[in-house]
Amino acid sequence: MSDTPTSQADVLARVAQTLESRKPENGGDPDKSYVARLFHKGDDAILKKIGEEATETVMAAKDARAAGLSREAVDKVVYEVADLWFHSMVLLARLGATPADVVNELARREGLSGLQEKAMRRDG
Amino acid sequence: MSDTPTSQADVLARVAQTLESRKPENGGDPDKSYVARLFHKGDDAILKKIGEEATETVMAAKDARAAGLSREAVDKVVYEVADLWFHSMVLLARLGATPADVVNELARREGLSGLQEKAMRRDG
Amino acid sequence: MSDTPTSQADVLARVAQTLESRKPENGGDPDKSYVARLFHKGDDAILKKIGEEATETVMAAKDARAAGLSREAVDKVVYEVADLWFHSMVLLARLGATPADVVNELARREGLSGLQEKAMRRDG
Amino acid sequence: MSDTPTSQADVLARVAQTLESRKPENGGDPDKSYVARLFHKGDDAILKKIGEEATETVMAAKDARAAGLSREAVDKVVYEVADLWFHSMVLLARLGATPADVVNELARREGLSGLQEKAMRRDG
Repeated sequence: MSDTPTSQADVLARVAQTLESRKPENGGDPDKSYVARLFHKGDDAILKKIGEEATETVMAAKDARAAGLSREAVDKVVYEVADLWFHSMVLLARLGATPADVVNELARREGLSGLQEKAMRRDG
Repeated sequence: MSDTPTSQADVLARVAQTLESRKPENGGDPDKSYVARLFHKGDDAILKKIGEEATETVMAAKDARAAGLSREAVDKVVYEVADLWFHSMVLLARLGATPADVVNELARREGLSGLQEKAMRRDG
Repeated sequence: MSDTPTSQADVLARVAQTLESRKPENGGDPDKSYVARLFHKGDDAILKKIGEEATETVMAAKDARAAGLSREAVDKVVYEVADLWFHSMVLLARLGATPADVVNELARREGLSGLQEKAMRRDG
Repeated sequence: MSDTPTSQADVLARVAQTLESRKPENGGDPDKSYVARLFHKGDDAILKKIGEEATETVMAAKDARAAGLSREAVDKVVYEVADLWFHSMVLLARLGATPADVVNELARREGLSGLQEKAMRRDG
Protein backbone atom coordinates (compact mmCIF):
# COMPACT_ATOMS: atom_id res chain seq x y z
CA MET A 1 0.00 0.00 0.00
CA SER A 2 3.05 2.22 0.12
CA ASP A 3 4.72 3.58 -2.95
CA THR A 4 8.41 3.61 -2.14
CA PRO A 5 10.47 1.53 -4.56
CA THR A 6 11.51 -0.93 -1.88
CA SER A 7 8.04 -1.84 -0.79
CA GLN A 8 6.89 -2.05 -4.42
CA ALA A 9 9.38 -4.83 -5.03
CA ASP A 10 8.30 -6.40 -1.78
CA VAL A 11 4.80 -6.52 -3.18
CA LEU A 12 5.72 -8.61 -6.22
CA ALA A 13 7.79 -10.94 -4.03
CA ARG A 14 4.93 -11.17 -1.52
CA VAL A 15 2.40 -11.96 -4.24
CA ALA A 16 4.75 -14.67 -5.57
CA GLN A 17 5.00 -16.11 -2.06
CA THR A 18 1.23 -16.16 -1.63
CA LEU A 19 0.84 -17.88 -5.01
CA GLU A 20 3.30 -20.59 -3.93
CA SER A 21 1.26 -21.23 -0.79
CA ARG A 22 -1.84 -21.82 -2.90
CA LYS A 23 -0.32 -24.70 -4.88
CA PRO A 24 -1.92 -28.10 -4.21
CA GLU A 25 1.41 -29.51 -2.92
CA ASN A 26 1.58 -26.66 -0.39
CA GLY A 27 -1.94 -27.23 0.88
CA GLY A 28 -3.81 -24.75 -1.32
CA ASP A 29 -7.52 -25.50 -1.09
CA PRO A 30 -9.58 -25.10 -4.29
CA ASP A 31 -12.71 -24.64 -2.18
CA LYS A 32 -11.27 -21.67 -0.32
CA SER A 33 -8.93 -19.91 -2.74
CA TYR A 34 -9.45 -18.61 -6.26
CA VAL A 35 -5.76 -19.18 -7.07
CA ALA A 36 -5.75 -22.73 -5.66
CA ARG A 37 -8.75 -23.35 -7.91
CA LEU A 38 -6.82 -22.09 -10.96
CA PHE A 39 -3.83 -24.32 -10.11
CA HIS A 40 -6.21 -27.24 -9.66
CA LYS A 41 -7.85 -26.64 -13.06
CA GLY A 42 -4.47 -26.51 -14.76
CA ASP A 43 -2.56 -24.68 -17.50
CA ASP A 44 -5.48 -24.00 -19.84
CA ALA A 45 -7.60 -22.30 -17.18
CA ILE A 46 -4.71 -19.96 -16.40
CA LEU A 47 -3.91 -19.25 -20.07
CA LYS A 48 -7.58 -18.57 -20.78
CA LYS A 49 -7.54 -15.93 -18.04
CA ILE A 50 -4.47 -14.28 -19.60
CA GLY A 51 -6.26 -14.01 -22.95
CA GLU A 52 -9.35 -12.72 -21.18
CA GLU A 53 -7.53 -10.10 -19.11
CA ALA A 54 -5.60 -8.88 -22.16
CA THR A 55 -8.94 -8.38 -23.94
CA GLU A 56 -10.35 -6.55 -20.91
CA THR A 57 -7.28 -4.30 -20.82
CA VAL A 58 -7.86 -3.41 -24.48
CA MET A 59 -11.55 -2.66 -23.82
CA ALA A 60 -10.78 -0.56 -20.73
CA ALA A 61 -8.17 1.46 -22.67
CA LYS A 62 -10.70 2.13 -25.45
CA ASP A 63 -13.24 3.20 -22.81
CA ALA A 64 -10.65 5.42 -21.12
CA ARG A 65 -9.89 7.23 -24.36
CA ALA A 66 -13.61 7.67 -25.12
CA ALA A 67 -14.06 9.09 -21.58
CA GLY A 68 -11.33 11.69 -22.19
CA LEU A 69 -8.94 9.82 -19.87
CA SER A 70 -11.03 10.56 -16.80
CA ARG A 71 -9.44 9.48 -13.53
CA GLU A 72 -12.03 6.77 -13.01
CA ALA A 73 -11.61 5.35 -16.52
CA VAL A 74 -7.79 5.28 -16.27
CA ASP A 75 -8.10 3.58 -12.84
CA LYS A 76 -10.12 0.88 -14.62
CA VAL A 77 -7.20 0.30 -17.01
CA VAL A 78 -4.80 0.05 -14.06
CA TYR A 79 -7.18 -2.48 -12.50
CA GLU A 80 -7.25 -4.60 -15.65
CA VAL A 81 -3.46 -4.44 -16.07
CA ALA A 82 -3.16 -5.59 -12.44
CA ASP A 83 -5.45 -8.52 -13.33
CA LEU A 84 -3.24 -9.28 -16.35
CA TRP A 85 0.00 -9.13 -14.35
CA PHE A 86 -1.55 -11.17 -11.54
CA HIS A 87 -2.57 -14.00 -13.85
CA SER A 88 0.87 -13.82 -15.55
CA MET A 89 2.36 -14.41 -12.09
CA VAL A 90 0.02 -17.38 -11.56
CA LEU A 91 1.34 -18.80 -14.86
CA LEU A 92 4.96 -18.16 -13.87
CA ALA A 93 4.41 -19.89 -10.52
CA ARG A 94 2.80 -22.81 -12.30
CA LEU A 95 5.87 -23.18 -14.56
CA GLY A 96 8.45 -22.67 -11.82
CA ALA A 97 9.40 -19.07 -12.62
CA THR A 98 8.92 -15.81 -10.68
CA PRO A 99 8.15 -12.14 -11.24
CA ALA A 100 11.82 -11.50 -10.35
CA ASP A 101 12.74 -13.37 -13.56
CA VAL A 102 10.52 -11.02 -15.56
CA VAL A 103 11.93 -7.94 -13.84
CA ASN A 104 15.47 -9.19 -14.48
CA GLU A 105 14.63 -9.63 -18.17
CA LEU A 106 13.28 -6.05 -18.24
CA ALA A 107 16.47 -4.86 -16.50
CA ARG A 108 18.60 -6.64 -19.10
CA ARG A 109 16.76 -4.80 -21.88
CA GLU A 110 16.88 -1.49 -20.01
CA GLY A 111 20.64 -1.85 -19.92
CA LEU A 112 20.73 -1.94 -23.71
CA SER A 113 21.25 1.30 -25.62
CA GLY A 114 18.56 2.86 -27.79
CA LEU A 115 20.10 1.43 -30.94
CA GLN A 116 20.11 -2.01 -29.39
CA GLU A 117 16.54 -1.49 -28.29
CA LYS A 118 15.62 -1.12 -31.94
CA ALA A 119 17.66 -4.07 -33.06
CA MET A 120 16.22 -6.45 -30.49
CA ARG A 121 12.69 -5.85 -31.69
CA ARG A 122 11.87 -8.51 -34.22
CA ASP A 123 8.90 -6.61 -35.57
CA GLY A 124 9.66 -2.99 -34.75
CA MET B 1 20.43 -6.84 -13.40
CA SER B 2 20.50 -7.66 -9.73
CA ASP B 3 17.73 -9.53 -8.01
CA THR B 4 17.42 -7.85 -4.63
CA PRO B 5 13.93 -6.44 -4.08
CA THR B 6 15.20 -2.87 -4.00
CA SER B 7 16.85 -2.94 -7.37
CA GLN B 8 13.88 -4.83 -8.83
CA ALA B 9 11.60 -1.96 -7.96
CA ASP B 10 14.19 0.42 -9.37
CA VAL B 11 13.88 -1.44 -12.65
CA LEU B 12 10.14 -0.82 -13.06
CA ALA B 13 10.63 2.85 -12.11
CA ARG B 14 13.56 3.13 -14.51
CA VAL B 15 11.62 1.55 -17.37
CA ALA B 16 8.75 3.99 -16.67
CA GLN B 17 11.24 6.88 -16.79
CA THR B 18 12.68 5.71 -20.09
CA LEU B 19 9.18 5.38 -21.55
CA GLU B 20 8.40 8.98 -20.52
CA SER B 21 11.53 10.19 -22.33
CA ARG B 22 10.33 8.52 -25.54
CA LYS B 23 7.06 10.49 -25.70
CA PRO B 24 6.85 12.93 -28.63
CA GLU B 25 6.51 15.90 -26.24
CA ASN B 26 9.76 14.85 -24.55
CA GLY B 27 11.70 14.59 -27.78
CA GLY B 28 11.22 10.87 -28.48
CA ASP B 29 12.22 10.20 -32.10
CA PRO B 30 10.14 7.62 -34.03
CA ASP B 31 13.08 7.06 -36.37
CA LYS B 32 15.41 6.07 -33.54
CA SER B 33 13.25 4.40 -30.90
CA TYR B 34 10.77 1.54 -31.08
CA VAL B 35 8.79 3.00 -28.17
CA ALA B 36 8.72 6.50 -29.69
CA ARG B 37 7.36 4.85 -32.82
CA LEU B 38 4.59 3.15 -30.81
CA PHE B 39 3.64 6.44 -29.12
CA HIS B 40 3.63 8.11 -32.55
CA LYS B 41 1.34 5.46 -34.02
CA GLY B 42 -1.10 5.83 -31.13
CA ASP B 43 -3.37 3.80 -28.87
CA ASP B 44 -4.35 1.09 -31.34
CA ALA B 45 -0.75 0.16 -32.19
CA ILE B 46 -0.03 -0.29 -28.47
CA LEU B 47 -3.24 -2.26 -27.79
CA LYS B 48 -2.56 -4.49 -30.78
CA LYS B 49 0.83 -5.34 -29.26
CA ILE B 50 -0.82 -6.25 -25.94
CA GLY B 51 -3.15 -8.67 -27.72
CA GLU B 52 -0.22 -10.07 -29.67
CA GLU B 53 2.06 -10.53 -26.67
CA ALA B 54 -0.74 -12.20 -24.69
CA THR B 55 -1.15 -14.68 -27.55
CA GLU B 56 2.61 -15.26 -27.67
CA THR B 57 2.64 -15.89 -23.92
CA VAL B 58 -0.08 -18.52 -24.36
CA MET B 59 1.84 -20.19 -27.20
CA ALA B 60 5.13 -20.16 -25.26
CA ALA B 61 3.43 -21.71 -22.23
CA LYS B 62 1.96 -24.48 -24.40
CA ASP B 63 5.42 -25.07 -25.88
CA ALA B 64 6.99 -25.10 -22.41
CA ARG B 65 4.58 -27.78 -21.21
CA ALA B 66 5.17 -29.87 -24.36
CA ALA B 67 8.94 -29.52 -23.75
CA GLY B 68 8.60 -30.88 -20.22
CA LEU B 69 9.23 -27.42 -18.74
CA SER B 70 12.84 -27.37 -19.95
CA ARG B 71 14.82 -24.38 -18.73
CA GLU B 72 15.04 -22.94 -22.25
CA ALA B 73 11.30 -23.27 -22.86
CA VAL B 74 10.39 -21.68 -19.50
CA ASP B 75 12.85 -18.85 -20.23
CA LYS B 76 10.88 -18.23 -23.44
CA VAL B 77 7.71 -17.81 -21.35
CA VAL B 78 9.52 -15.34 -19.07
CA TYR B 79 10.65 -13.46 -22.19
CA GLU B 80 7.09 -13.25 -23.54
CA VAL B 81 5.67 -12.17 -20.16
CA ALA B 82 8.37 -9.44 -20.10
CA ASP B 83 7.15 -8.33 -23.54
CA LEU B 84 3.57 -8.31 -22.24
CA TRP B 85 4.45 -6.29 -19.11
CA PHE B 86 6.62 -3.93 -21.16
CA HIS B 87 3.82 -3.10 -23.59
CA SER B 88 1.40 -2.76 -20.64
CA MET B 89 3.77 -0.12 -19.28
CA VAL B 90 3.83 1.65 -22.66
CA LEU B 91 0.01 1.75 -22.46
CA LEU B 92 0.07 3.03 -18.88
CA ALA B 93 2.55 5.78 -19.85
CA ARG B 94 0.33 6.70 -22.80
CA LEU B 95 -2.67 7.10 -20.47
CA GLY B 96 -0.82 8.92 -17.69
CA ALA B 97 -0.45 6.00 -15.28
CA THR B 98 2.60 4.10 -14.01
CA PRO B 99 3.69 0.58 -13.05
CA ALA B 100 3.64 1.85 -9.44
CA ASP B 101 -0.15 2.21 -9.80
CA VAL B 102 -0.39 -1.43 -10.85
CA VAL B 103 1.86 -2.58 -8.02
CA ASN B 104 -0.19 -0.55 -5.55
CA GLU B 105 -3.36 -2.22 -6.83
CA LEU B 106 -1.68 -5.62 -6.37
CA ALA B 107 -0.63 -4.59 -2.84
CA ARG B 108 -4.20 -3.56 -2.06
CA ARG B 109 -5.43 -7.00 -3.07
CA GLU B 110 -2.58 -8.78 -1.27
CA GLY B 111 -3.72 -7.03 1.90
CA LEU B 112 -7.10 -8.71 1.59
CA SER B 113 -7.71 -11.98 3.36
CA GLY B 114 -8.30 -15.26 1.55
CA LEU B 115 -12.02 -14.98 1.94
CA GLN B 116 -11.98 -11.51 0.50
CA GLU B 117 -9.78 -12.74 -2.32
CA LYS B 118 -12.60 -15.07 -3.28
CA ALA B 119 -15.28 -12.45 -2.97
CA MET B 120 -13.48 -9.85 -5.04
CA ARG B 121 -13.25 -12.15 -8.04
CA ARG B 122 -16.25 -11.48 -10.20
CA ASP B 123 -15.87 -14.71 -12.10
CA GLY B 124 -14.10 -17.02 -9.67
CA MET C 1 -26.18 -30.98 -41.12
CA SER C 2 -25.59 -31.52 -44.80
CA ASP C 3 -22.44 -30.47 -46.56
CA THR C 4 -23.60 -29.27 -49.97
CA PRO C 5 -22.64 -25.64 -50.59
CA THR C 6 -26.27 -24.52 -50.72
CA SER C 7 -27.21 -25.82 -47.32
CA GLN C 8 -23.94 -24.53 -45.86
CA ALA C 9 -24.95 -21.00 -46.77
CA ASP C 10 -28.39 -21.72 -45.38
CA VAL C 11 -26.73 -22.52 -42.09
CA LEU C 12 -25.07 -19.12 -41.68
CA ALA C 13 -28.30 -17.38 -42.69
CA ARG C 14 -30.25 -19.56 -40.27
CA VAL C 15 -27.88 -18.86 -37.41
CA ALA C 16 -28.18 -15.12 -38.16
CA GLN C 17 -31.97 -15.44 -38.08
CA THR C 18 -31.89 -17.26 -34.75
CA LEU C 19 -29.60 -14.60 -33.30
CA GLU C 20 -32.05 -11.87 -34.38
CA SER C 21 -34.86 -13.67 -32.58
CA ARG C 22 -32.84 -13.65 -29.35
CA LYS C 23 -32.56 -9.85 -29.23
CA PRO C 24 -34.45 -8.22 -26.35
CA GLU C 25 -36.62 -6.24 -28.78
CA ASN C 26 -37.66 -9.50 -30.46
CA GLY C 27 -38.59 -11.18 -27.19
CA GLY C 28 -35.30 -12.93 -26.44
CA ASP C 29 -35.38 -14.10 -22.83
CA PRO C 30 -32.10 -13.88 -20.86
CA ASP C 31 -33.37 -16.57 -18.51
CA LYS C 32 -33.90 -19.07 -21.31
CA SER C 33 -31.27 -18.33 -23.93
CA TYR C 34 -27.50 -17.99 -23.71
CA VAL C 35 -27.50 -15.57 -26.66
CA ALA C 36 -30.30 -13.43 -25.21
CA ARG C 37 -28.20 -13.27 -22.05
CA LEU C 38 -25.18 -12.04 -24.03
CA PHE C 39 -27.28 -9.37 -25.77
CA HIS C 40 -28.66 -8.35 -22.39
CA LYS C 41 -25.19 -8.01 -20.86
CA GLY C 42 -24.04 -5.86 -23.78
CA ASP C 43 -21.03 -5.23 -26.03
CA ASP C 44 -18.29 -5.99 -23.51
CA ALA C 45 -19.64 -9.43 -22.63
CA ILE C 46 -19.66 -10.33 -26.34
CA LEU C 47 -16.20 -8.90 -27.01
CA LYS C 48 -14.80 -10.71 -23.99
CA LYS C 49 -16.08 -13.98 -25.48
CA ILE C 50 -14.35 -13.22 -28.79
CA GLY C 51 -11.04 -12.71 -26.99
CA GLU C 52 -11.64 -15.87 -25.00
CA GLU C 53 -12.58 -18.05 -27.97
CA ALA C 54 -9.56 -16.78 -29.95
CA THR C 55 -7.34 -17.86 -27.03
CA GLU C 56 -9.07 -21.24 -26.88
CA THR C 57 -8.54 -21.68 -30.63
CA VAL C 58 -4.82 -21.01 -30.16
CA MET C 59 -4.61 -23.50 -27.28
CA ALA C 60 -6.54 -26.17 -29.20
CA ALA C 61 -4.25 -25.74 -32.22
CA LYS C 62 -1.17 -26.13 -30.02
CA ASP C 63 -2.72 -29.27 -28.50
CA ALA C 64 -3.58 -30.61 -31.96
CA ARG C 65 0.00 -30.25 -33.13
CA ALA C 66 1.32 -31.89 -29.94
CA ALA C 67 -1.14 -34.76 -30.53
CA GLY C 68 0.19 -35.31 -34.05
CA LEU C 69 -2.99 -33.85 -35.57
CA SER C 70 -5.14 -36.72 -34.34
CA ARG C 71 -8.71 -36.62 -35.59
CA GLU C 72 -10.03 -35.89 -32.11
CA ALA C 73 -7.59 -33.02 -31.52
CA VAL C 74 -8.33 -31.40 -34.90
CA ASP C 75 -12.07 -31.75 -34.21
CA LYS C 76 -11.44 -29.74 -31.02
CA VAL C 77 -9.92 -26.94 -33.13
CA VAL C 78 -12.96 -27.01 -35.43
CA TYR C 79 -15.17 -26.78 -32.35
CA GLU C 80 -13.27 -23.75 -31.02
CA VAL C 81 -13.30 -22.01 -34.43
CA ALA C 82 -17.08 -22.61 -34.53
CA ASP C 83 -17.29 -20.93 -31.10
CA LEU C 84 -15.21 -18.03 -32.43
CA TRP C 85 -17.32 -17.61 -35.57
CA PHE C 86 -20.53 -17.97 -33.56
CA HIS C 87 -19.58 -15.18 -31.16
CA SER C 88 -18.43 -13.06 -34.13
CA MET C 89 -21.94 -13.47 -35.51
CA VAL C 90 -23.43 -12.43 -32.15
CA LEU C 91 -21.30 -9.27 -32.38
CA LEU C 92 -22.34 -8.61 -35.98
CA ALA C 93 -26.02 -9.01 -35.05
CA ARG C 94 -25.52 -6.63 -32.14
CA LEU C 95 -24.05 -4.00 -34.47
CA GLY C 96 -26.60 -4.47 -37.27
CA ALA C 97 -24.42 -6.51 -39.65
CA THR C 98 -24.66 -10.13 -40.86
CA PRO C 99 -22.44 -13.08 -41.76
CA ALA C 100 -23.41 -12.35 -45.40
CA ASP C 101 -21.49 -9.06 -45.06
CA VAL C 102 -18.40 -10.97 -43.95
CA VAL C 103 -18.75 -13.52 -46.75
CA ASN C 104 -19.18 -10.70 -49.28
CA GLU C 105 -15.98 -9.08 -47.99
CA LEU C 106 -14.19 -12.44 -48.38
CA ALA C 107 -15.62 -12.73 -51.93
CA ARG C 108 -14.36 -9.25 -52.76
CA ARG C 109 -10.85 -10.26 -51.68
CA GLU C 110 -11.07 -13.63 -53.44
CA GLY C 111 -11.76 -11.71 -56.64
CA LEU C 112 -8.45 -9.92 -56.31
CA SER C 113 -5.39 -11.37 -58.03
CA GLY C 114 -2.42 -12.81 -56.16
CA LEU C 115 -0.46 -9.62 -56.62
CA GLN C 116 -3.35 -7.60 -55.23
CA GLU C 117 -3.65 -10.05 -52.37
CA LYS C 118 -0.12 -9.13 -51.39
CA ALA C 119 -0.68 -5.43 -51.77
CA MET C 120 -3.84 -5.35 -49.68
CA ARG C 121 -2.10 -6.82 -46.67
CA ARG C 122 -0.93 -3.99 -44.52
CA ASP C 123 1.47 -6.14 -42.62
CA GLY C 124 2.20 -9.01 -44.99
CA MET D 1 -19.84 -10.56 -54.56
CA SER D 2 -23.43 -11.67 -54.76
CA ASP D 3 -25.51 -12.29 -51.71
CA THR D 4 -27.63 -15.29 -52.57
CA PRO D 5 -27.06 -18.19 -50.17
CA THR D 6 -25.68 -20.43 -52.90
CA SER D 7 -22.90 -18.13 -53.97
CA GLN D 8 -22.10 -17.30 -50.35
CA ALA D 9 -21.32 -20.94 -49.69
CA ASP D 10 -19.34 -21.03 -52.92
CA VAL D 11 -17.21 -18.26 -51.50
CA LEU D 12 -16.10 -20.20 -48.43
CA ALA D 13 -15.41 -23.27 -50.58
CA ARG D 14 -13.51 -21.12 -53.09
CA VAL D 15 -11.42 -19.49 -50.37
CA ALA D 16 -10.62 -22.96 -48.98
CA GLN D 17 -9.57 -24.06 -52.49
CA THR D 18 -7.32 -21.04 -52.93
CA LEU D 19 -5.72 -21.68 -49.53
CA GLU D 20 -4.97 -25.28 -50.54
CA SER D 21 -3.21 -24.04 -53.69
CA ARG D 22 -0.94 -21.84 -51.58
CA LYS D 23 0.48 -24.73 -49.56
CA PRO D 24 4.17 -25.44 -50.18
CA GLU D 25 3.39 -28.95 -51.40
CA ASN D 26 1.01 -27.47 -53.99
CA GLY D 27 3.53 -24.97 -55.29
CA GLY D 28 2.60 -21.97 -53.14
CA ASP D 29 5.40 -19.41 -53.38
CA PRO D 30 6.25 -17.44 -50.20
CA ASP D 31 7.71 -14.67 -52.34
CA LYS D 32 4.48 -14.13 -54.24
CA SER D 33 1.66 -14.96 -51.82
CA TYR D 34 0.89 -13.74 -48.32
CA VAL D 35 -0.82 -17.05 -47.49
CA ALA D 36 2.07 -19.14 -48.84
CA ARG D 37 4.30 -17.04 -46.59
CA LEU D 38 2.12 -17.83 -43.56
CA PHE D 39 2.18 -21.56 -44.34
CA HIS D 40 5.95 -21.33 -44.76
CA LYS D 41 6.40 -19.61 -41.39
CA GLY D 42 4.30 -22.26 -39.67
CA ASP D 43 1.70 -22.70 -36.95
CA ASP D 44 2.83 -19.89 -34.65
CA ALA D 45 2.72 -17.21 -37.35
CA ILE D 46 -0.87 -18.20 -38.13
CA LEU D 47 -1.94 -18.39 -34.48
CA LYS D 48 -0.37 -15.00 -33.80
CA LYS D 49 -2.50 -13.54 -36.57
CA ILE D 50 -5.65 -15.04 -35.02
CA GLY D 51 -4.84 -13.37 -31.69
CA GLU D 52 -4.07 -10.14 -33.50
CA GLU D 53 -7.24 -10.12 -35.61
CA ALA D 54 -9.39 -10.92 -32.56
CA THR D 55 -7.86 -7.89 -30.81
CA GLU D 56 -8.49 -5.73 -33.88
CA THR D 57 -12.11 -6.91 -33.98
CA VAL D 58 -12.52 -5.86 -30.34
CA MET D 59 -10.97 -2.44 -31.03
CA ALA D 60 -13.10 -1.88 -34.15
CA ALA D 61 -16.28 -2.78 -32.23
CA LYS D 62 -15.37 -0.30 -29.47
CA ASP D 63 -14.75 2.35 -32.16
CA ALA D 64 -18.05 1.51 -33.87
CA ARG D 65 -19.99 1.99 -30.65
CA ALA D 66 -18.18 5.30 -29.93
CA ALA D 67 -19.03 6.42 -33.49
CA GLY D 68 -22.75 5.76 -32.90
CA LEU D 69 -22.62 2.66 -35.15
CA SER D 70 -21.96 4.76 -38.27
CA ARG D 71 -21.99 2.76 -41.50
CA GLU D 72 -18.26 3.29 -42.00
CA ALA D 73 -17.39 2.17 -38.47
CA VAL D 74 -19.56 -0.97 -38.69
CA ASP D 75 -17.98 -1.76 -42.09
CA LYS D 76 -14.62 -1.68 -40.30
CA VAL D 77 -15.88 -4.34 -37.87
CA VAL D 78 -17.05 -6.48 -40.79
CA TYR D 79 -13.59 -6.05 -42.34
CA GLU D 80 -11.86 -7.20 -39.15
CA VAL D 81 -14.20 -10.17 -38.69
CA ALA D 82 -13.41 -11.14 -42.32
CA ASP D 83 -9.70 -10.99 -41.39
CA LEU D 84 -10.39 -13.16 -38.35
CA TRP D 85 -12.40 -15.73 -40.32
CA PHE D 86 -9.82 -15.71 -43.12
CA HIS D 87 -6.95 -16.50 -40.76
CA SER D 88 -9.11 -19.15 -39.05
CA MET D 89 -9.48 -20.77 -42.48
CA VAL D 90 -5.70 -20.62 -42.99
CA LEU D 91 -5.34 -22.46 -39.66
CA LEU D 92 -7.97 -25.05 -40.63
CA ALA D 93 -6.22 -25.66 -43.97
CA ARG D 94 -2.93 -26.04 -42.14
CA LEU D 95 -4.43 -28.69 -39.86
CA GLY D 96 -6.34 -30.55 -42.58
CA ALA D 97 -9.82 -29.20 -41.84
CA THR D 98 -12.17 -26.94 -43.83
CA PRO D 99 -14.69 -24.15 -43.33
CA ALA D 100 -17.33 -26.76 -44.20
CA ASP D 101 -16.39 -28.56 -40.96
CA VAL D 102 -17.03 -25.35 -39.01
CA VAL D 103 -20.33 -24.73 -40.77
CA ASN D 104 -21.39 -28.31 -40.09
CA GLU D 105 -20.58 -27.84 -36.40
CA LEU D 106 -22.69 -24.66 -36.40
CA ALA D 107 -25.51 -26.58 -38.15
CA ARG D 108 -25.31 -29.28 -35.51
CA ARG D 109 -25.77 -26.70 -32.77
CA GLU D 110 -28.49 -24.86 -34.68
CA GLY D 111 -30.41 -28.13 -34.76
CA LEU D 112 -30.45 -28.18 -30.97
CA SER D 113 -33.39 -26.68 -29.13
CA GLY D 114 -33.13 -23.55 -27.04
CA LEU D 115 -32.92 -25.55 -23.86
CA GLN D 116 -30.12 -27.63 -25.29
CA GLU D 117 -28.39 -24.44 -26.44
CA LYS D 118 -28.19 -23.43 -22.79
CA ALA D 119 -27.02 -26.79 -21.62
CA MET D 120 -24.23 -27.11 -24.17
CA ARG D 121 -22.60 -23.89 -23.03
CA ARG D 122 -20.00 -24.79 -20.49
CA ASP D 123 -19.80 -21.26 -19.12
CA GLY D 124 -23.17 -19.73 -19.99
